[in-house]
Amino acid sequence: MEGKMKVVMKQEAKAGAVLSEMDIPKIGPKDVLVKVMATSICGTDAHIYSWDAWSQNRIKPPYVMGHEFAGEVVEIGADVKSIQVGDIVSAETHIVCNTCELCTTGKAHICKDTAILGVDTNGTYAEYVAIPETNAWKNPKGIDPAYLAVQEPLGNAVHTIMSGDIIGKTVAVVGCGPIGIMAVAVAKAVSASKVIAIEVNEYRLELAKQLGADVVINPMKEDPIARILEETEGLGVDVVAEMSGNAIAIKQALKYIKLGGRMAMLGIPTAEVPLDIANDIVFKGITIHGIAGRKMYETWYQVKGLIESGNLNLDAIITHRLPMEEFEKGFDLMASGDCGKVVLYPTKELFDTYNK
Amino acid sequence: MEGKMKVVMKQEAKAGAVLSEMDIPKIGPKDVLVKVMATSICGTDAHIYSWDAWSQNRIKPPYVMGHEFAGEVVEIGADVKSIQVGDIVSAETHIVCNTCELCTTGKAHICKDTAILGVDTNGTYAEYVAIPETNAWKNPKGIDPAYLAVQEPLGNAVHTIMSGDIIGKTVAVVGCGPIGIMAVAVAKAVSASKVIAIEVNEYRLELAKQLGADVVINPMKEDPIARILEETEGLGVDVVAEMSGNAIAIKQALKYIKLGGRMAMLGIPTAEVPLDIANDIVFKGITIHGIAGRKMYETWYQVKGLIESGNLNLDAIITHRLPMEEFEKGFDLMASGDCGKVVLYPTKELFDTYNK
Amino acid sequence: MEGKMKVVMKQEAKAGAVLSEMDIPKIGPKDVLVKVMATSICGTDAHIYSWDAWSQNRIKPPYVMGHEFAGEVVEIGADVKSIQVGDIVSAETHIVCNTCELCTTGKAHICKDTAILGVDTNGTYAEYVAIPETNAWKNPKGIDPAYLAVQEPLGNAVHTIMSGDIIGKTVAVVGCGPIGIMAVAVAKAVSASKVIAIEVNEYRLELAKQLGADVVINPMKEDPIARILEETEGLGVDVVAEMSGNAIAIKQALKYIKLGGRMAMLGIPTAEVPLDIANDIVFKGITIHGIAGRKMYETWYQVKGLIESGNLNLDAIITHRLPMEEFEKGFDLMASGDCGKVVLYPTKELFDTYNK
Amino acid sequence: MEGKMKVVMKQEAKAGAVLSEMDIPKIGPKDVLVKVMATSICGTDAHIYSWDAWSQNRIKPPYVMGHEFAGEVVEIGADVKSIQVGDIVSAETHIVCNTCELCTTGKAHICKDTAILGVDTNGTYAEYVAIPETNAWKNPKGIDPAYLAVQEPLGNAVHTIMSGDIIGKTVAVVGCGPIGIMAVAVAKAVSASKVIAIEVNEYRLELAKQLGADVVINPMKEDPIARILEETEGLGVDVVAEMSGNAIAIKQALKYIKLGGRMAMLGIPTAEVPLDIANDIVFKGITIHGIAGRKMYETWYQVKGLIESGNLNLDAIITHRLPMEEFEKGFDLMASGDCGKVVLYPTKELFDTYNK
Repeated sequence: MEGKMKVVMKQEAKAGAVLSEMDIPKIGPKDVLVKVMATSICGTDAHIYSWDAWSQNRIKPPYVMGHEFAGEVVEIGADVKSIQVGDIVSAETHIVCNTCELCTTGKAHICKDTAILGVDTNGTYAEYVAIPETNAWKNPKGIDPAYLAVQEPLGNAVHTIMSGDIIGKTVAVVGCGPIGIMAVAVAKAVSASKVIAIEVNEYRLELAKQLGADVVINPMKEDPIARILEETEGLGVDVVAEMSGNAIAIKQALKYIKLGGRMAMLGIPTAEVPLDIANDIVFKGITIHGIAGRKMYETWYQVKGLIESGNLNLDAIITHRLPMEEFEKGFDLMASGDCGKVVLYPTKELFDTYNK
Repeated sequence: MEGKMKVVMKQEAKAGAVLSEMDIPKIGPKDVLVKVMATSICGTDAHIYSWDAWSQNRIKPPYVMGHEFAGEVVEIGADVKSIQVGDIVSAETHIVCNTCELCTTGKAHICKDTAILGVDTNGTYAEYVAIPETNAWKNPKGIDPAYLAVQEPLGNAVHTIMSGDIIGKTVAVVGCGPIGIMAVAVAKAVSASKVIAIEVNEYRLELAKQLGADVVINPMKEDPIARILEETEGLGVDVVAEMSGNAIAIKQALKYIKLGGRMAMLGIPTAEVPLDIANDIVFKGITIHGIAGRKMYETWYQVKGLIESGNLNLDAIITHRLPMEEFEKGFDLMASGDCGKVVLYPTKELFDTYNK
Repeated sequence: MEGKMKVVMKQEAKAGAVLSEMDIPKIGPKDVLVKVMATSICGTDAHIYSWDAWSQNRIKPPYVMGHEFAGEVVEIGADVKSIQVGDIVSAETHIVCNTCELCTTGKAHICKDTAILGVDTNGTYAEYVAIPETNAWKNPKGIDPAYLAVQEPLGNAVHTIMSGDIIGKTVAVVGCGPIGIMAVAVAKAVSASKVIAIEVNEYRLELAKQLGADVVINPMKEDPIARILEETEGLGVDVVAEMSGNAIAIKQALKYIKLGGRMAMLGIPTAEVPLDIANDIVFKGITIHGIAGRKMYETWYQVKGLIESGNLNLDAIITHRLPMEEFEKGFDLMASGDCGKVVLYPTKELFDTYNK
Repeated sequence: MEGKMKVVMKQEAKAGAVLSEMDIPKIGPKDVLVKVMATSICGTDAHIYSWDAWSQNRIKPPYVMGHEFAGEVVEIGADVKSIQVGDIVSAETHIVCNTCELCTTGKAHICKDTAILGVDTNGTYAEYVAIPETNAWKNPKGIDPAYLAVQEPLGNAVHTIMSGDIIGKTVAVVGCGPIGIMAVAVAKAVSASKVIAIEVNEYRLELAKQLGADVVINPMKEDPIARILEETEGLGVDVVAEMSGNAIAIKQALKYIKLGGRMAMLGIPTAEVPLDIANDIVFKGITIHGIAGRKMYETWYQVKGLIESGNLNLDAIITHRLPMEEFEKGFDLMASGDCGKVVLYPTKELFDTYNK
């Protein structure tokens, strides 16, 4: 497809981004070209926007930001077989080698040779994006594309919650950013016996409640260890879903996790965290899972199945919808913490169609 | 405790049972004496009542029938530590050796030296019953004892449904007797993506629908294989919960189960079933789990957690409540198939209190 | 590569095969051309050779037989990246779609759209064979190609033995054809506590003993149920590896399997087998796994690791080596049962080099 | 049984222990009295002997030390059923409540109400010891009691190595004290593909080699990260068995563990260890298992099975045998690190019988 398109560019190695124009991407024989219908802001995008230490090491401007999205396929490469023009797709954002031991034994999500869409390649804050056929996830038609876009971070929540036993278990979700509140919804949908949400931002704690948290704790206002022991007959929680990356929160969690419990860690601490391995890990006999990305593609099928069950309450997750031009407002919302998922629409038509 | 009590006796080696009176049981140092508040009729009880071939081999009259129940502890043996007078308990009905390899490695539910309450020992169709401390399951107070009584068969349903992956999976529940409909409720509660109930009795099919089945199939009226493939994009179901023991149903299930799927078998065929092992098991790469009883006590904790989640819809499961004197009416209902769980109350006071 | 090559052809829809000549295959952009160094006779090949009922339904002559092999890559397609000319490769023989749910969730080995090398495509009883890059398994150099060729059936044995817990368990290997004896070797290598081999052919029973079986039973000479209970303190075996496909053997195995045990079924019965599901599966609480092919590629990495451990005693597995011209002798050996693995060499040079 | 017996007492709250005499213990109705045939020195005993910070908090002198042992049952309590006089037993040293959720769901080894034999109760450095029936492990007869005594720490090694996939995997055993070298032997016995031992003490590194380590690394002499990457095609090890408790060793291990690998932690750091959770746990997608004690009694059956397999090379593990009177020499050896397992014999007769 020929022509120009609007994009949000990380133009320079400094805070911020700019609205810009560039050629619609050309696709290779194994790629598909997708017209973006909705794209949502990830915490990673917010880090890149604010140009923090991690971004300064990792990101090479200029490039198009964004990776959570849904859109319609408008062109397919010569060798593409499983996707057709007209399909509505989302994307798994890890573009992997497909040949190494990890890729061929169910661990492609941690392939050493991973490129990330919208981080290492041009992304989805754009009218069009090119993605490999193998990364396209075909959706049913007729669904609000905002919900399709957030399947990617929802996959992180599902991967975290379902990395071990969860049905009938008590669970603490530590940190209620967008993925944290989705983890609350997932845990409720699969009948965790009690879902406890922990978060310092009151707006997000309120979202956690709307998504079904049985107990919400603001650790600035009460002692989470005492409260959780009280809520769990003095035993602590079976499962911790660690989404905060906060050192104090992690250390507290290791105190209120039950003997033999499991902690799934998705949050990213920015420095080393000193852990009492003897008392909190060895003697307690707990299990810790590091969670990266989504299993390719087991997690995606779990997400699909959960959505089809009808039990997953996602309505309250998307709190803001904006035309892509107003991306700065979106990033300000993310910085404030007073939001769930923020969705951008590349064109005014799309915004008008879906912002109801 | 001294005195006489009313019981339903399997008096003789023939069909039927009789209302009778006997001494309140004496307890040993490791037992507890429980005043029965509600007791429900199990399919096994119905087999014993009708005196079928299995019963003729297994049962040694006279003895008191019944094993699903809840009641209040009124006396404890000298060595009992974990249960107190006043506790409201249900019972795990497998009384096991506690010392063999199976008992000490998480498989006590299939201990070779199992005695079954109300089958090998005097049971719960009585005003009082003696059970070992280790078989008493302590319940929260203030709950309708009918729901506490049915935790034992609910445990069979939970054991069956949770014997492998279930979240986000398609599942067929084959046979919708009381445990089958509970399996439907459990599958829905844990977000199976689609729950398909198969049953020839229309009353029970209707119950399955009330308990949340997304699709109901009467195999006398339509081809279950064709319908299930249609409902599952031609792939078949991920999980079969086999509760029917019916040879035709089992063979059909092996045709509509997905490649790589799993079948949990709780139903009890009365004769050998010829299976196409090559095409239906080996080439399809499926897994079959034989399900006996409930894991002691992992399943009980799962049941507890599921109930606490608030997602488990059990209301419609108990369809009939009767005074124990009317046990014959209860067995007639079971024989007709036009019922869910039938609950008996040992005294008129209990019946009047709970039959609302 | 241009030129003619020698092959063993299944020429017509009747018993037998013929030595023939055809063009060296042309490869596509994603294929590699391999010069065959050694190829071994599979039980499936023997079925096709004898033209049994299964073959008559499945096989479309004329085509080149054979699929177990190792060879040197002599040409690669334009898009091939992970394989280079000079690599020594074996092949995973399931050529799958790589895009369906099964393929993308770790179950590619049971993909619905599987073509099998040397069954649905031209095979390896040839001087050269073309295989997809994704099916080529790169070997270390300097190893006898006969051992590399048998990795494929060894993978079946590993998949079977490792489909559940095995370390420190008692195991019965039922049926000691080539894969059965390899299963014996694998079970010994991973410290099964006692390995019991069951087989009617004395030659193969002797092979099982050489490969490490602690107990060998000829069921024509003694009652395997009685003997196995005697060998296992009356408990039966933890694990049954069913490689025979024999109905009587399967029914016996369900009697001597331990309560809570597991049966992995790789053998292919030719007719329905009547099973006592109630007593042998449900009440015993056992698990049955249908085993097809090898996990792609988890099993291959397990095979690699086992070989590298140095514990796997494979020497006795290859009992006969022949020039490819003498394929009829090879098939006669297979029919007699008096052999382990029979290896064919496409050329006299290869035969002379490796037949030492 | 009446009479006096010789014991090694932790008499006072200071370093050391004394040889003393006391009454042969009386047993309760659920206990057995065992005549000690051999008892081995655990690292924990060495900590108590040296009276380190942990011991000062935990231990209440005076009491009899020791918990690893084997002996002959000479008296049983009135309620004991599974053990008979004349049985040769070892002991699981965790005496648990048997009624809590952990005890009844396969996690008794981390029961909150655990008392430890020879730590919280009188122990096995004695001619006789009383243990609960439920903690007695029945051994086959005719085996050197020194090997029976070390089954308890061997269980720690087995629990650590078998806490996840191990067959065909690369494994690093970090810290080669007695349990570390047993972990090497276990990993070899179950066909880990390559076993790498890491230890600063050259004597113990030599023991690790004797027990089968494929590679030994002294981290004082070479960089373990560089060496392990070199030994594993640059990928790192699949499994780390952390037996050192050393902060530097733990941090190094997280660098050389493979993406998606698992670390089983049995070693006990004496202070907090700062971990790079983001890079070493989350992004690498690894799993960490805290390992306490032995699964009761799954691990014991695994130990039994491994011993029966004949693959477990334990000969070199017991390096020193002493009469109990020479316990000080034993503790000196433990302090020097120049030993494997040190075994004490309560009487001269026993020493003379078994020290060959």
